[in-house]
Amino acid sequence: MSELRKNPVTGRWVIVATERNLKPYDFEPPFEVRRPGPCVFCSGMESTTPQEVYSAGRNGSTPNTPGWKVRVVPNKFPALRIEEYYSLSANGMYQKTGGLGAHEVIIETPDHQLDLADLKTEEIEMVLNAYQERMRDLQADQRLRYCIIFKNQGAQAGASIQHAHSQLIAVPVVPKLVQEELHEADEFYRKNGECIICRSLQEDISSGKRIVSRNQFFLATIPFAPRFPYETWIVPLSHEAFFTKVDKNTMRSFADILKKILLGIKLALGNPPFNYMLHVAPYPIGGGSPHRESYHWHLEILPVVTKVAGFEWGTDFYINPVIPEEAARTLWESLPVED
Amino acid sequence: MSELRKNPVTGRWVIVATERNLKPYDFEPPFEVRRPGPCVFCSGMESTTPQEVYSAGRNGSTPNTPGWKVRVVPNKFPALRIEEYYSLSANGMYQKTGGLGAHEVIIETPDHQLDLADLKTEEIEMVLNAYQERMRDLQADQRLRYCIIFKNQGAQAGASIQHAHSQLIAVPVVPKLVQEELHEADEFYRKNGECIICRSLQEDISSGKRIVSRNQFFLATIPFAPRFPYETWIVPLSHEAFFTKVDKNTMRSFADILKKILLGIKLALGNPPFNYMLHVAPYPIGGGSPHRESYHWHLEILPVVTKVAGFEWGTDFYINPVIPEEAARTLWESLPVED
Repeated sequence: MSELRKNPVTGRWVIVATERNLKPYDFEPPFEVRRPGPCVFCSGMESTTPQEVYSAGRNGSTPNTPGWKVRVVPNKFPALRIEEYYSLSANGMYQKTGGLGAHEVIIETPDHQLDLADLKTEEIEMVLNAYQERMRDLQADQRLRYCIIFKNQGAQAGASIQHAHSQLIAVPVVPKLVQEELHEADEFYRKNGECIICRSLQEDISSGKRIVSRNQFFLATIPFAPRFPYETWIVPLSHEAFFTKVDKNTMRSFADILKKILLGIKLALGNPPFNYMLHVAPYPIGGGSPHRESYHWHLEILPVVTKVAGFEWGTDFYINPVIPEEAARTLWESLPVED
Repeated sequence: MSELRKNPVTGRWVIVATERNLKPYDFEPPFEVRRPGPCVFCSGMESTTPQEVYSAGRNGSTPNTPGWKVRVVPNKFPALRIEEYYSLSANGMYQKTGGLGAHEVIIETPDHQLDLADLKTEEIEMVLNAYQERMRDLQADQRLRYCIIFKNQGAQAGASIQHAHSQLIAVPVVPKLVQEELHEADEFYRKNGECIICRSLQEDISSGKRIVSRNQFFLATIPFAPRFPYETWIVPLSHEAFFTKVDKNTMRSFADILKKILLGIKLALGNPPFNYMLHVAPYPIGGGSPHRESYHWHLEILPVVTKVAGFEWGTDFYINPVIPEEAARTLWESLPVED
């Protein structure tokens, strides 16, 4: 009684393996001991990182000293560098270029003991504002074509440092996955005259299926065909392709629902490792006030409770052992009670 | 001094992060205790699995009793079933179908203690023959469009059973990743009049770069832009799109190089978990003797020594902290000495 489901936004097929239909208690997230601080990201350790490019919450203190609430620094071991060049060269069929780009770390709190979900809503809002400011700044560099913000929490999700942080990587080419999503979105817009994600919001709200939470400006849902168990998308109700254009009220609302969902995942699944990624449209070439009808920014949250294996690597076809409608119900039941 | 490299076969960009340039001793594969047998895949336990659909090496013994060397059974908890239907239905924008397909387990040896790499070359050849026979058989089912053979070894690579085995999944749609590879291959053929992998073989042999091993019918290389450290491809020297058409001599040669590479990876990296996947062209519709100029079957081996994280999930852009040319040298130096 398994089902094959197609994700309309990514064009990717997923096998919903109802034979297995695992429950939250079937997953055992690894228990991770928090190593004692202070670490390189702690307040008081500012001299151990590269010079900060952004900070928030300072009440008159000088850069690279304590007093900040959020701090952004270049990655000490960057995958890409702004001083590099972008110039394709080919050796026969093989193309390469210098590693132009940016790789920054957003330190979410000066406190070694806290996770992002433990912060107050207004502190989470400061983290999201930092994302937006850094994206705006890098967007001015016309050599860069795309900027992704992501977070890895827990060693199994790829985090090598435990102190709460996110990362930003800007690259000189639009990544393939983004191109594919844009292609699907453009095709849908061409055929239907509306944004594919605006349509999915309408369908999900009207059916009431797979909704985890809703607030003034956002809907949090399990997608119809998610790759991973408990994969959750937070989507703004109003159409907008660019995160850089999000206004202050919307940002507060985003912080509110993000905190709620992260706490729900933590409670439902026993504090699992997770990744999240901000999906946005690429920088508009030439700058100006960007507008795009056929894409819709959103955040994808992926709890790490299963392993990706040969089948997925060989096909990009995913097997999800949890029925999405049940995953939504599980998370919804675990949400913190409203104040 | 990082580089961005483009994989011509997949069209995917990879960041070769030379800042990190990790060495084999930087990776610590988890030590996995082998749980004592017998397990469900052991000789003598045949009644605990579904009825076998194939076996090899029996010297007169009856099916589902001991005496086999390789045994293929349906997966007890299949992701897909041959009794299901394929009939797309849509609810608004959401498409789904019943879980038609096949999901089988290829038990590689009756011995609980051995890994695939520990088997004799002629035993590995029997495993590869089983792959081919099962693919041929499923190809006759015109409802199925693609068959992937893969292997997960080690818990971190997604294996839940330790006894040496591979899996086969056949699906009623051509997976997106396969479509993309076929698209790149077709484009290359249209522009250059030759198979993209035949060309890469010529370039790699003439430059001598990234070659790990070569025998009569195969080349084993680290690709120019591999997603993962020590990712190795085993590619037949002669053009052929379909694994089902491989002849006996070629199969013996494939077994020989596969054993050598698996032992090299085991020695170089301390017996890491790994996945491998057989990449082949999709079934030709309507059967007959298939031929395809623009694709070339091969095996991709992915040692699991790093974690996939938010950047990769959000972009399909991979960061590889090992320079491919050095990875090839490391594996080459670890190959078993010729008899």
